[in-house]
Amino acid sequence: MIRITVWNEFAHEQEDPDIRKLYPEGIHGAIADFLKKSGEDFKVRTATLYDEECGLTEEVLNETDVLIWWGHMRHYLVPDEVVNRVFEHIQNGMGLIALHSAHQSKIFEKLMGTISGDLKWRETGDKEILWCVDPSHPIARGVGEHIILEQEETYGEHFRIPTPDELVFISWFSGGEVFRSGCVYKRSRGKIFYFRPGHESYPTYYNKQVQQVIINAVKYVYTPAEEVPYGYGMVESVLK
Amino acid sequence: MIRITVWNEFAHEQEDPDIRKLYPEGIHGAIADFLKKSGEDFKVRTATLYDEECGLTEEVLNETDVLIWWGHMRHYLVPDEVVNRVFEHIQNGMGLIALHSAHQSKIFEKLMGTISGDLKWRETGDKEILWCVDPSHPIARGVGEHIILEQEETYGEHFRIPTPDELVFISWFSGGEVFRSGCVYKRSRGKIFYFRPGHESYPTYYNKQVQQVIINAVKYVYTPAEEVPYGYGMVESVLK
Amino acid sequence: MIRITVWNEFAHEQEDPDIRKLYPEGIHGAIADFLKKSGEDFKVRTATLYDEECGLTEEVLNETDVLIWWGHMRHYLVPDEVVNRVFEHIQNGMGLIALHSAHQSKIFEKLMGTISGDLKWRETGDKEILWCVDPSHPIARGVGEHIILEQEETYGEHFRIPTPDELVFISWFSGGEVFRSGCVYKRSRGKIFYFRPGHESYPTYYNKQVQQVIINAVKYVYTPAEEVPYGYGMVESVLK
Amino acid sequence: MIRITVWNEFAHEQEDPDIRKLYPEGIHGAIADFLKKSGEDFKVRTATLYDEECGLTEEVLNETDVLIWWGHMRHYLVPDEVVNRVFEHIQNGMGLIALHSAHQSKIFEKLMGTISGDLKWRETGDKEILWCVDPSHPIARGVGEHIILEQEETYGEHFRIPTPDELVFISWFSGGEVFRSGCVYKRSRGKIFYFRPGHESYPTYYNKQVQQVIINAVKYVYTPAEEVPYGYGMVESVLK
Repeated sequence: MIRITVWNEFAHEQEDPDIRKLYPEGIHGAIADFLKKSGEDFKVRTATLYDEECGLTEEVLNETDVLIWWGHMRHYLVPDEVVNRVFEHIQNGMGLIALHSAHQSKIFEKLMGTISGDLKWRETGDKEILWCVDPSHPIARGVGEHIILEQEETYGEHFRIPTPDELVFISWFSGGEVFRSGCVYKRSRGKIFYFRPGHESYPTYYNKQVQQVIINAVKYVYTPAEEVPYGYGMVESVLK
Repeated sequence: MIRITVWNEFAHEQEDPDIRKLYPEGIHGAIADFLKKSGEDFKVRTATLYDEECGLTEEVLNETDVLIWWGHMRHYLVPDEVVNRVFEHIQNGMGLIALHSAHQSKIFEKLMGTISGDLKWRETGDKEILWCVDPSHPIARGVGEHIILEQEETYGEHFRIPTPDELVFISWFSGGEVFRSGCVYKRSRGKIFYFRPGHESYPTYYNKQVQQVIINAVKYVYTPAEEVPYGYGMVESVLK
Repeated sequence: MIRITVWNEFAHEQEDPDIRKLYPEGIHGAIADFLKKSGEDFKVRTATLYDEECGLTEEVLNETDVLIWWGHMRHYLVPDEVVNRVFEHIQNGMGLIALHSAHQSKIFEKLMGTISGDLKWRETGDKEILWCVDPSHPIARGVGEHIILEQEETYGEHFRIPTPDELVFISWFSGGEVFRSGCVYKRSRGKIFYFRPGHESYPTYYNKQVQQVIINAVKYVYTPAEEVPYGYGMVESVLK
Repeated sequence: MIRITVWNEFAHEQEDPDIRKLYPEGIHGAIADFLKKSGEDFKVRTATLYDEECGLTEEVLNETDVLIWWGHMRHYLVPDEVVNRVFEHIQNGMGLIALHSAHQSKIFEKLMGTISGDLKWRETGDKEILWCVDPSHPIARGVGEHIILEQEETYGEHFRIPTPDELVFISWFSGGEVFRSGCVYKRSRGKIFYFRPGHESYPTYYNKQVQQVIINAVKYVYTPAEEVPYGYGMVESVLK
């Protein structure tokens, strides 16, 4: 069983009727919903900015194998203490899936070591086509060679991230941009997957292929608990 | 001084008047021309499929620091003996710049260890935009964040190459495709740069930014002669 | 179920009584034995240089998900036709585990695109310690932070391979050398794992940790059959 | 000309007579000295923890192309404000060479996105041999295939760093450990080189090969000023 916590900033849905109409249970609700119905051995809970400690207490994180993160306008409201707690758990093996504008979240920037918020963007409803550049990657399994999203926010390079450990998808936008849209990183024992699509004003998280990518990614960034602890610090020679 | 040999299949230009008109001195001639005028410390020669031993004798390769390769329809006419000779020189440090349809050349496939000929393609004069995804890479120096080519042959993913050691450019095509267009590999001491643009029917090699990329790439894939030879084979313990 | 074929040159065991004593059923027999007893859902067969077509006919390869390769002195006796057949299957998703001196086999060199036979070596019974440098990598699972082999053949850098896509183990030798001992590559749909230990004159393949690495690696290089075939060749625009 | 600032914590040399004897002008003084005498076009200055603002004011960083960092016991005394300032400059292209225990400095951990302070260590004067695993890498130029240091502090894996973009050296220690000792990273426009050797109680920075590596690294992590600024933020379509 993989224990998933879906975290959402949950601001747009409460403040904008059009977006509430699109995601009546919040983006977190929509994501939790398809994860629960996936047929996979997942246990899913949600948390938002409006929960105490962002809903990411030590207890919750101790019971989380994979954290999914959606945020956009209120990154600055996530307390550093919560960010540091999440960071520690990732170092120890918790997986992270950072969606869309989570590229600018405190936790993603802290993991990247760059100003990963930097990129080009435009909200003009461009068509997006995500092309898979690694067909046998587990995250691409069953998805097919491309995902077509009729309308999305455009993101464009240069995206200020370190070179991904694994690059799975590259996006094409009708306005002329390309973007590294599916990027895997490892930080200590924790795996991270950044996945670009999912602007709040489009029904992206209802797309079956997008859902499949996220389901696959949950399984990919899941790291089983450490069986044989590694030693750190002062040691005697292994030859003795 | 960097000694460059520009190799060209040189078939289209001799067989098709339109292409001869575009590249009257051959594609190799056009490339050699801008390299000579670059102001860099380059010594440039050319060779073609129609020269004896493809113009790539041991003597020529001994005097070549960087080999530029353009081929398309006649890959199969390059003798294996010549391919093996080029391969050995690359292993020992000769740089290779594989242009456009050279992705399917014997030498490039031999270096990749894949069926790198596999990709999507279409000759419909799509617009191509190459986006730089590594702004401070030496190959991108002075080029700017994108190169717009009004018309080019389209190449599309999936491109059956190993994950590049360094990915510098990603192309956008107006017909909906993306492509990893600027890829660096190292094989033993030799550096390789694959650069996508340059279909024979378009004036791509007259584009100043394309020229700048190739000039930069020559300098980047150049490896100075080995100063301190490395040992291989049976050895005594280094502790003795 | 993962269908495994263990291939062995099977020369030392037939020609040298000491080695026959160590591996009475051949190295392939010893490896097949622990794979069968692993408790995993494996179906295991073996093949050797002395079988017709090296035991690697189209039929056998069609029924092989993962090929394990051990060879040393007779690489040159494997026909190019067999090598090319194995190469094609790897491109299409068959996994390969290349053990020890298989670094110099025709198939491994063809996949690497380098003279991967080049390295330092010495048969003086040095102690080898393999250190894991990627603790949460699936290939290292349950192995612990190091494997100590009291006696092994020494391999030393520089090892003429491309930069691994993933580096899992680095070896230490008592004579002063280090070596990149656990290297993952992808070539088209096929995954490759090179694993250094296993000289014929030492009981390395009876070591439980070495066995665990090979069992893990079988699962890691296994690629399920392609579900959604990708298109290659001439295409129409995806926008139509 | 490359403008270098050598930063040193400068605590051991002031507090321990033995170390002062070894490095009478401080480790920064010793490093600055060989850089000045290198014959390269370098302009060298130094700064320490005991200078105001650690000697790393905006003015100094504006005039610094490459920053070399040595620190050990007093990482916590470097103010976050200084760390953030250095971080910003690296994002914009300043190179960083992190030496030895700088793996645990605030700036290096911030760039890595991991708890890079974690590793094994032992001060027993083990012999260290650094093996080059990328012979034609510019940082290895003229160094030869190994560097032997008769006595050094031992560092051992697992070293909690992200997979290096480029791995140049691997260390062997007589007590049985290995370590990834020469690691290149890129963060936005800035290049970073981590180089392991240089414990304060050994004369490591007087070793000619170690000096050559640092001289080469200065040239390698140097990024020329951006010629063609890249755009970030909201953009119009490039097609218009």
